[in-house]
Amino acid sequence: MGLVSLRNFFVLSLALNVSLILRAINQNEKLHSGALMAVEKGAKVAQMTFLSFPSLSSPSAAAPETQTPLGRERVVNLDHGDPTMYEQYWKPMGDKTTIVIPGWQSMSYFSDVTNLCWFMEPEFAKQIVRIHKVVGNAVTEGRHIVVGTGSSQLLLAALYALSPQDSSNPISVVSAAPYYSSYPLMTDCVKSGIHKWAGDAKIFDKDEPYIELVTSPNNPDGFVRHPMVNRTGGILVHDLAYYWPQYTPISTPADNDLSLFTVSKSTGHAGLRIGWALVKDVEVAKRMIKFIELNTIGVSKDSQLRAAKVLEVVSDSCEQAGGSEYTESFFHFSHTVMTERWRLLREAVKRSGLFSLPNFSPAHCNFFDNNLGTQPAFAWLKCDKDNVEDCESFLRGHKILTRGGKHFGVGSKYVRISMLDREQTYNLFIERLSQIRS
Amino acid sequence: MGLVSLRNFFVLSLALNVSLILRAINQNEKLHSGALMAVEKGAKVAQMTFLSFPSLSSPSAAAPETQTPLGRERVVNLDHGDPTMYEQYWKPMGDKTTIVIPGWQSMSYFSDVTNLCWFMEPEFAKQIVRIHKVVGNAVTEGRHIVVGTGSSQLLLAALYALSPQDSSNPISVVSAAPYYSSYPLMTDCVKSGIHKWAGDAKIFDKDEPYIELVTSPNNPDGFVRHPMVNRTGGILVHDLAYYWPQYTPISTPADNDLSLFTVSKSTGHAGLRIGWALVKDVEVAKRMIKFIELNTIGVSKDSQLRAAKVLEVVSDSCEQAGGSEYTESFFHFSHTVMTERWRLLREAVKRSGLFSLPNFSPAHCNFFDNNLGTQPAFAWLKCDKDNVEDCESFLRGHKILTRGGKHFGVGSKYVRISMLDREQTYNLFIERLSQIRS
Repeated sequence: MGLVSLRNFFVLSLALNVSLILRAINQNEKLHSGALMAVEKGAKVAQMTFLSFPSLSSPSAAAPETQTPLGRERVVNLDHGDPTMYEQYWKPMGDKTTIVIPGWQSMSYFSDVTNLCWFMEPEFAKQIVRIHKVVGNAVTEGRHIVVGTGSSQLLLAALYALSPQDSSNPISVVSAAPYYSSYPLMTDCVKSGIHKWAGDAKIFDKDEPYIELVTSPNNPDGFVRHPMVNRTGGILVHDLAYYWPQYTPISTPADNDLSLFTVSKSTGHAGLRIGWALVKDVEVAKRMIKFIELNTIGVSKDSQLRAAKVLEVVSDSCEQAGGSEYTESFFHFSHTVMTERWRLLREAVKRSGLFSLPNFSPAHCNFFDNNLGTQPAFAWLKCDKDNVEDCESFLRGHKILTRGGKHFGVGSKYVRISMLDREQTYNLFIERLSQIRS
Repeated sequence: MGLVSLRNFFVLSLALNVSLILRAINQNEKLHSGALMAVEKGAKVAQMTFLSFPSLSSPSAAAPETQTPLGRERVVNLDHGDPTMYEQYWKPMGDKTTIVIPGWQSMSYFSDVTNLCWFMEPEFAKQIVRIHKVVGNAVTEGRHIVVGTGSSQLLLAALYALSPQDSSNPISVVSAAPYYSSYPLMTDCVKSGIHKWAGDAKIFDKDEPYIELVTSPNNPDGFVRHPMVNRTGGILVHDLAYYWPQYTPISTPADNDLSLFTVSKSTGHAGLRIGWALVKDVEVAKRMIKFIELNTIGVSKDSQLRAAKVLEVVSDSCEQAGGSEYTESFFHFSHTVMTERWRLLREAVKRSGLFSLPNFSPAHCNFFDNNLGTQPAFAWLKCDKDNVEDCESFLRGHKILTRGGKHFGVGSKYVRISMLDREQTYNLFIERLSQIRS
């Protein structure tokens, strides 16, 4: 049998299988959806004890009412930013993004020994360059790409790479409050002698070197950010996890010394643990790679291959939108979902009369070529009720788990709420919030 | 179409595809093998600049002769323990270990919220318990399993979990020389204030708490190890990466407070970056999990699923060896390869008259139920030639890259040589070594 006819046959057979797999999955889901839902409900309760770092240190969060998993008593956990909303897009795409890995693949530690980042899959690197070109959110020319086990590992790698090694004092690491709640915990995790958390960038006034983490749009509040320390000469790390069209207008391609991205928040694939850094200085890139060598000896090749495939389909969907394969781009889809979710949230907040939300001015988005609003991955909710000092506790009393402002370096009148959970969970949250009256 | 007949059809079609995929791969390999080999040869040269941590700090290793990628001029790089030898087992098994992952799978950060280790796939945990039972190399009862991005991350997690947080001084971390060359670099990577590298366990005599890393069988020298600090009360971490039947007789199931394992050296899947810890104390397990949260927010789910599949096939091959599906177990196969490689090595060393190797007493292996020798994953070679002080440089002059003794805390008369590379590379190494005469 010749190679050509073999291939034709293989493609036919694969197409057949994919449709069979999808049908089997759908049937299975229908059969088990009842059981799954019960598990999920129980699960939601347990989650809070784990991932959400602040909750680990606040056992009170595990209040008795969270032990009731069923029906309308279910606790809505929006403490962490688990991006399960995106399953809604990827399930119907299953055939396009399925990958098949034979058992003998990726045995070696090495992916591409001709690349500085020897553990990075070439196909992944290729799709990173492509997606940034398609979306227009970052300059990749003259940058070294470094792949990481999520952008968390890359942030730690960046701190390692940028901290002076020979200084007698650790360098100060700052970020403007409200800042991502994990920054202080990550920076000081093993009490490093090369870097230390120094709090809010807005009030940092020490006359010494510093690293400023600039998260834009910001987690938790969604605002576009610039460096805040009132001084030049700071070392900057730009965390651009949320600089994607579904969340914020893409005004210009990011052109920083060091930018971090992740598939968790761009395509919604948090379970892959894949992030990437765009790094201008080759010596900084080398030191980041060295950190990842010492930390985990590279990054899962399987997940890199999956990330490459998913990013490829996102780029394809943008370039072919309107055709028969992709009626709309991934970002059109997710932008529409976020728009609707924010509409529902603002309506509920208005109805309750107890809370307020940030307001964003519309701006031109180059990707959509339109003037658009901002619809962050988190809602930064303020409780305006006079007799409520702790908004996190107040909402917990209404079976809504959120992350309180103190974890982000501000007051407890604020909470952060994930906007990326599954539709059912999100709708229940809106229902609960709407029912809270003063 | 009913679910049963649908399933039957799907299984048939899948079996067909797998054979087609395998045939296509084989054909492809034949077509491109020439080109691939050239790339691999060039690649081998570049590798030394990267993974092998010690080489990074010794640019002299990149000697001019390493730039010649072709023919007999090719540099044999056995500096790192890249386990590509195992492709030889897994390629013919391709159909049994292939996994298919649809694009919408593992979107969430969470794998199993009912487990302490919430980012661990249940199927992976199940296969860990099973493989240890089948092999008899570790007790899993009364243990918490923690999955990590390779055992490197788990070692760092263990150091974090076991170091006192409130002490004014960092706790000493020791290991008997020769010790794994990465231990000092990992322990002191960010100059932690909670732990610091304190060198050779055999000469550690400070009257203060300490953590001892016990690697058994040992990397680099292959000997079975016990704690070496001449004192009770030390905190022990057992690195059992090589405690598998192909390398050493399995004398008893490990029953430690904290043991580390990895698929990199057990099944040869280094590119997955998957390791696991068996932890007795629940508080230690919790702190390790916390570290992995802060370090990488969990571990790639794709790679966990692949590891589960590979471990399942290894266990199957042990339980069904001699049948039609598995003529021999994975460990029979790999034990045979290692036996032959050590035979060739000892022959070559004898022929040259310049080197010596460790000698191991035979011991009873419960897995094979036989008295067997030891055949480590690394050869710990000593240069006995009087006028050669630096064995690493000497061998580099003969186009063999190894890792010198000083990286392992001992003299430069010693080198560590990987025994796990592909056959072609290994044979070239033996050929080169045999030709060295005094």
